[in-house]
This record gives sequence, structure tokens and C-alpha cells, in this order.
Amino acid sequence: MGGKITPRSENYSQWYLDIVQNAGLAENSAVRGCMVIKPYGFAIWERMRDELDRMFKETGHQNAYFPIFIPKSFFSKEASHVEGFAKECAVVTHYRLKNAPDGSGVVVDEDAKLEEELIVRPTSETIIWDTYRNWIQSYRDLPLLINQWANVVRWEMRTRLFLRTAEFLWQEGHTAHATEQEAIEEAEKMLGVYATFAEDWMAIPVLKGLKSANERFAGAIETYCIEAMMQDGKALQAGTSHFLGQNFAKAFDVKFLSKENQLEHVWATSWGVSTRLMGALIMTHSDDKGLVLPPTLAPIQVVLVPIFRNAEQTPKILEYIKEIESELKHAKISVKLDDSDNYSPGYKFAEYEMKGVPLRIAVGGRDLENGTVEIARRDTLTKEVTSRDGIKEKVLALLIDIQSNLYQKALEMRTHNTCRVDTWDEFVDVIENKGGFVYAHWDGTTETEEIIKEKTKATIRLIPLEDGEPGKCVLTGKPSVKRVVFARAY
Amino acid sequence: MGGKITPRSENYSQWYLDIVQNAGLAENSAVRGCMVIKPYGFAIWERMRDELDRMFKETGHQNAYFPIFIPKSFFSKEASHVEGFAKECAVVTHYRLKNAPDGSGVVVDEDAKLEEELIVRPTSETIIWDTYRNWIQSYRDLPLLINQWANVVRWEMRTRLFLRTAEFLWQEGHTAHATEQEAIEEAEKMLGVYATFAEDWMAIPVLKGLKSANERFAGAIETYCIEAMMQDGKALQAGTSHFLGQNFAKAFDVKFLSKENQLEHVWATSWGVSTRLMGALIMTHSDDKGLVLPPTLAPIQVVLVPIFRNAEQTPKILEYIKEIESELKHAKISVKLDDSDNYSPGYKFAEYEMKGVPLRIAVGGRDLENGTVEIARRDTLTKEVTSRDGIKEKVLALLIDIQSNLYQKALEMRTHNTCRVDTWDEFVDVIENKGGFVYAHWDGTTETEEIIKEKTKATIRLIPLEDGEPGKCVLTGKPSVKRVVFARAY
Repeated sequence: MGGKITPRSENYSQWYLDIVQNAGLAENSAVRGCMVIKPYGFAIWERMRDELDRMFKETGHQNAYFPIFIPKSFFSKEASHVEGFAKECAVVTHYRLKNAPDGSGVVVDEDAKLEEELIVRPTSETIIWDTYRNWIQSYRDLPLLINQWANVVRWEMRTRLFLRTAEFLWQEGHTAHATEQEAIEEAEKMLGVYATFAEDWMAIPVLKGLKSANERFAGAIETYCIEAMMQDGKALQAGTSHFLGQNFAKAFDVKFLSKENQLEHVWATSWGVSTRLMGALIMTHSDDKGLVLPPTLAPIQVVLVPIFRNAEQTPKILEYIKEIESELKHAKISVKLDDSDNYSPGYKFAEYEMKGVPLRIAVGGRDLENGTVEIARRDTLTKEVTSRDGIKEKVLALLIDIQSNLYQKALEMRTHNTCRVDTWDEFVDVIENKGGFVYAHWDGTTETEEIIKEKTKATIRLIPLEDGEPGKCVLTGKPSVKRVVFARAY
Repeated sequence: MGGKITPRSENYSQWYLDIVQNAGLAENSAVRGCMVIKPYGFAIWERMRDELDRMFKETGHQNAYFPIFIPKSFFSKEASHVEGFAKECAVVTHYRLKNAPDGSGVVVDEDAKLEEELIVRPTSETIIWDTYRNWIQSYRDLPLLINQWANVVRWEMRTRLFLRTAEFLWQEGHTAHATEQEAIEEAEKMLGVYATFAEDWMAIPVLKGLKSANERFAGAIETYCIEAMMQDGKALQAGTSHFLGQNFAKAFDVKFLSKENQLEHVWATSWGVSTRLMGALIMTHSDDKGLVLPPTLAPIQVVLVPIFRNAEQTPKILEYIKEIESELKHAKISVKLDDSDNYSPGYKFAEYEMKGVPLRIAVGGRDLENGTVEIARRDTLTKEVTSRDGIKEKVLALLIDIQSNLYQKALEMRTHNTCRVDTWDEFVDVIENKGGFVYAHWDGTTETEEIIKEKTKATIRLIPLEDGEPGKCVLTGKPSVKRVVFARAY
């Protein structure tokens, strides 16, 4: 606590890491690329997880759990999947250690070599579809709507806390359907759930769309995504939902007897969000004083800080503030009373600002006399002295206002940093000097997409789901059916 | 569903596996020793997890998350810990696969060998205490009360679903304290939490005690445990709480500045329960018709089954039963209405008996005329026709009665299968022919304990916490301070 935060204007990337560290969210571990999620960071993730879990269950999904290990050969069964996932991964080759002959510790026991190596799951399509083969026989077994909360490992070379780590926590939905149409509807429905969660809970406006072939999930027919814009104008992919067609059903031989008594391959989707969302949350709302949290996800929504000037007042102020605490708790508001005497009020104010607590209520001797409190908002950094009466209603209204204000601010930022571009020079200029989302025409080829990426580091973040006006590719001048969204991305 | 269950009397072990399979709780996966927890089994585990999590938070603990990988060298830092845990484990040696030169799939890329092997965590003391070194400087940082929900891997050679699997889910609490006394109190407090959970939620009576040196956790000064008795008279260790002294603080150099300004090593505890509890739950209450669940943990507490005899009655019966459904749901009872027409009522009855649903309410044409319903209890397999009026109160009372009946039955079974034994012949006779818990004197030596184990397969399940009468060891005749509990165990 109490460390300095590099201003955004000076070094955006360091600003992010300073907040992660100083707000006590996460830290690097002794294991390369693996993070420790600290209690305060985990409390935020728990709120996100619980709400997503509720939304999944309300849309008919059940949780289950599949093994962390996947036999190496499983990855080879789906041709494009192996290219995308079986490369940079953690490989288990042995199942025993033994004492080193020289007494220096333990060494791998070469006699305990696995016949087939096991991969620590980077994603679970293969092991799950291998399991589904036995679960699905008839159309009566469909749809199968399953989700898993799990840790996964991808051996990333360049890692950054929450945004890209070798191990991360996520959920992965894996559903099986009798028809193509139903599977597509499921993939779109879960994209909608993610968008609702991002906007209503995280206060992050998102664009919905499809990935280009190049950015598609390895093994998918279509990848739907939600994309958010960070304060530096870069895009962050916040969730994906894949229509997998019959690819995995064919690779793992999963067939069902239809109502018409035909043996058919099953249709599939998968969809996931991860602890990466923590990165999106931090980067969307925070400022140079630290973390800013939307009230819906804040582990502490209101912090109460008594200000003692003399020993005589202390018990009276405590009584006064404890009544407020009790009143707010009854209204299901998450409150923390910090009456510790280790630190000064000023120190505490800075600490809870750092931690992004949406509201701070301070009570001093004058408040006691006047029947008031001082309320400070984290989002606007404004404060006001207000009557103690009706405090509950006031707090509830402020929490709602903060939630909506954070969303509006993020939306305005995105609107301000979104533009349409029709020429290549303009495109390069905007990407290099302004950043943000660029709506531009693209000829639909992977080749063009790659040239643009190479020249500008901008990628196609999504192809909008809505129809658009046709035009000419910003690079090649060839025909384009509609504009797509380009940006540099995390 | 609908598979046959081997009677307990015929083959207890197969009976257990039949229930796990037929109730849809779990199954073996394609990966040796790793299980798939199926949706219905996972829904029970989720209830257990949520309740335990609430109890942990109420006792001041916070959740966090630590890496799944532990550097090999960490295990060597605590001398006894390495013997217990760093042997049968999953070892990650490489971080990349590549296409096989012959096109046959993927192979390990030998160029991507890790400098130091990583172990998939079998338990997390080492990585956590390595982290705590940076979190703890002063007495103000203590106590540190942290819990983690995670998957762990121990390379077991003989596995059985839930009871012993290579990968399992668990929670592990890891706390740090300024004094020995406080750490011991924490270890005992968490044992109490486990005992309360086992008895009040799982309806499983448990004995509390200490492990002998032989059965102690590798690295602990004392291991506290709760032990339950299964229907076959064997013991099952249902949870452990360890007082770790300063062993891990010394191994990982974790010191704090005390109030008296002295630099001291921190005192530690760790405590855990796992998906093994699912095995205990199944084996304690179930019968030859399938799973029996205590209402507090049942994903479905009441199943409603309409019985249609003719098309005219159908809508009326449905309306009648849906009103009951709505009434019960309002009372926060978990209800499932099964009005599917794929299966006969008799088939459904058997299915929900198999799944251990505590109460079944059936409604047929006659009930409609008489304003009644038929209620069947899963625990006693009794049914009665009762008035539809006051159904909510009736159901609530029955659920409470079932919960307490299951506990009482298990307690009676345990009482019936517990005895005191004073001679060696008697000891052998009881262990061989009757089973159950045997209170006998023991001279306190590991040597005697091991001879008894070798001769009878019985181990010391626990040393009671309470004082007892002294006596003479059942094997050696040497002095004993009090009786300990012997049993054969899972």
C-alpha cells in the first residue's frame, strides 16, 4: 500500500502495473508467467464469477469439471486446433521424483516416464468432446449445456498481470446441439450474456461482432467477440463465443440418433471469459490516484472513516458511525468501518482511493454537532457534506449514479476515439497518432489483413454483425461489403 | 440412468461405484486416475463448497489464488515435506510441442526443456510460504488468514472415484500468526468448522482428534482430523487441520517484527477438505436403491411428478401441481417438476430415488378429486397421502426431519460399531470379523503402530483430544496414557 503511481500520461503500461501492485490485486510469482491473485483482487474476481455463474444458470447451463490433463494425441485429432493450441504449452512427461544420489535434493525419476505425454489444458474442447461421445446417443440427450470454471495454461513468452499470463482462471462453456441453427443461436446468446455482463456489471461498453478468419479460434467456424476500448485507445478482446460446427463431433466421433432416426454428427459451441477481464476493468475506469471500481463489483462499496480529534469525542463519533454502518448493512450495502488507529485519516483516504472504493463517508466532531457526514465519490473525486438523515437513500442513489457515470465516461471516451477512415494515409495517421477504433473498408482477404498488421500493428478487431454500406478497401481499393473495426490491441 | 445397483451385502465396493455411475455423479476420464465430475455430482459439490466458503469467511478468512506449478527445488526446502509430497507427482519438463517430422502428429520439442522442472501442486505450502515472505514484515500484517479453492494432483497408483484420484478439487487454508498459541487455536477452530459442516450439513457424525506421528501431514507438528465411519465399518478421514509450527517460516525465511521489536519466525497452520467428502457423503447415507442425500446439500430437494391417466385430466393436474411448485419455490425450497412424457411415473420414481432426491410428491386424478398429494420420503422409503393444504409447512417439516433422521441413523450405526477392547485376541477378532472403531490402549510408539497395521491392516485413526484413563498397550502391554481409536480405513 501507499506506493506511488506513475501517471497515465507518462507511461500507461507502468501506470497499469502500479495500480495492480498498489491496490493489492495481483503479483508475479516465483514461477515464470504465473501470477498470484491477492485477496483484494480475488474478491473482485469472485464477484464477477458469481454473477456470470448466475447468468449461465439462468440460461440453462450446468457446471461440471473435466481433467486438467489432456493426452497429447487428442490435440492432433482436430487439424486446425492442434496448430493453435498444442504448441506453447506445459508438457507433463514424468510422474515421479526421487532423491538425488548426491543428496542435493530431488531429481526426476527417469523410470517414471509416461507412455504418452500429458498437456496441461490450454482449453478443453478435446477432452470434453472425448467425454461427450459417451453422453450423447439420442436427440433426447440434446442440447447439452455445460460450463466449467477452471485454470488453464498457455506458455506465453511475454506476460503481463491479468492481461496475459501463463496460467489464468476462466470459464469455458461447451454445448452440444442437434442442429446448426440451434448451435449458432447458442453462440450468439452467450455473446449477448457477455455483452450484458460487461456493460451492466463492469460498466464497460463493448462492440459485438465476428472475428476475421485470421483471428478465429483454432477449430471454430465462426468466432463471435466483444471488444472494449481501453483509455489508451487500444482494443481489448473481453470475451469470445465460438460456433464450432461439427468439427469436434467429427474429430471425436460424437453422433446422435435424430428424431427422424438418422445418425448425425452433433453441432457445437464453446465460449469463455477469463481473469483478463480484471485487466479490462482496471484499465477502463482507473485514474492516476489508483483503481476505480463500479459499485456492482466492488468488494467494499462504502468505507466509513471516523476522524477523532480528542479522546472525549471518540466514543460518540464511534457510536454515530456504527449506527450508519448498521443502517447501510441492512440495505445490503457492502460496508467497511475502518476505525483502526494505526493510520491517519489522510492516509486512509489515500488507501481507499487507491483501492477504488466507490464511496467514502467521513465523520468528525463537527458532523456530530451538525448531524451531518462528509461523502466523497471515487469516480469524480468530489465531496459534499450532507445530512445524516436519509443516508441510506443517499448512498443507494449515489452508487447507482456512479455505476452509470462510469459507463457513460467510458462510452464517451470510446465515441471520441472512434472514427471512419477512407484513405490509406488517413488510416495510418489515425492508427499512429490518435489510436482508437477505426471503421474502414477491407477487401475480405487474409493477405490484406496481414499487410495492414505488418505496416501499422493494427488488426481487425471485429466485423460488425449488422449490415453496412459497401465500399473500397482502404489498402487495396478492392470491393468491400462493409466497414470493419481496426485497432491496435492488447 | 436406470442401471442396476449391486447390493451392499454382495459387494460394498461395487455398490459404491454403481451409485456414482448410475446417479450421474462422476466417471473415469481418458486420463489415468483423473475423473470427470458430472453436472449432478458437481451441483452437490457446489453446495458443499458454497457453505464451507461462507463458514471460512465468517471466521475471517479471505480467498486468494496461487500458481498451479511449484519449482522442484521448493520441495527440498522443508525436509519432511519433500518425503511426503515430492515423490508421486506430475512433473512438467517441457513447454513446447512441435509437428512430428513424419507427419504423425505432435511430439515434444526437446529444445524447449525447462531449466528447472515444475511440479503440478500436490499441496501449496511451499509456493504460498515463498509468497508470504514478501507479505509479512510486521506484527501488523498478522494474522494472515487465507484460503484457496483449487485443483491438486497426486499421482496415486490405485484410484477410486472421489475417494482417491490423481487430480481432485479441494480448498486449502494457509494462515500465518504471531504466536504459537494463536496458530494452535486457529488449527483447532478450523477443525471445529469442519466438524460442524460434516455434522450439520452432511449429516455425518465425526470424531475429532489428533493423528499419530506416523499419520501426520508431512511438515506438521500436529495434525488434527475428523474421522467418519462408513456403512461397512471402515473409517474415512474427512478433513485435516495442521499446526505447522515454524517449519515453513524457517524453510522460506518468513520473519516479522514483533510488538517488542524482535525479529521472529511466523507460526503457521494449513487445513483442507476435498472432493473426497463426496465419497463420504455417498457411503454414509445411501442404500441399495441408490444415493440418499441430506436435504441441505440436495440440488433437488423435492421432485414433483404428475400422473396422467387420461387426456382430459392432464391440464387440471398440471395446474394443480404447478401451484404446489410455485408455493414451494417461494419458500426457497429447491423443486423440480418433471412433467416430461418420455418416461412412465414408475421409471421417474426409480430415477429420483437413484439420485437421492429427499422428497417426491406425486399427483394423480384421485388427488385432484380429494385435494391431496402423495409424499414419499427417500430416507425411509415410506409414503403417505396427505392434504394439499399446508403442503409447504409439511414439506419444510419433513426436510428437517429427514436431515436429523439421516444424522441419527449414521450415529446409531457408529455407536453400534464402536467398542472397547483390552486384549490382543479380542482386538484381532473385532477388526477381522466386526470392523468399526476400536478404542484400545497403545504404548505411543510408531513401532507398535506399524506392527498392528501389518498384522491387522488397522491404523490409528485418531488420538482423542480429551483426557482418558491410563492402561496397558493392547499389543505390547506397555503403559498407555489413554485409549486411541483404531480402524481399517479408506
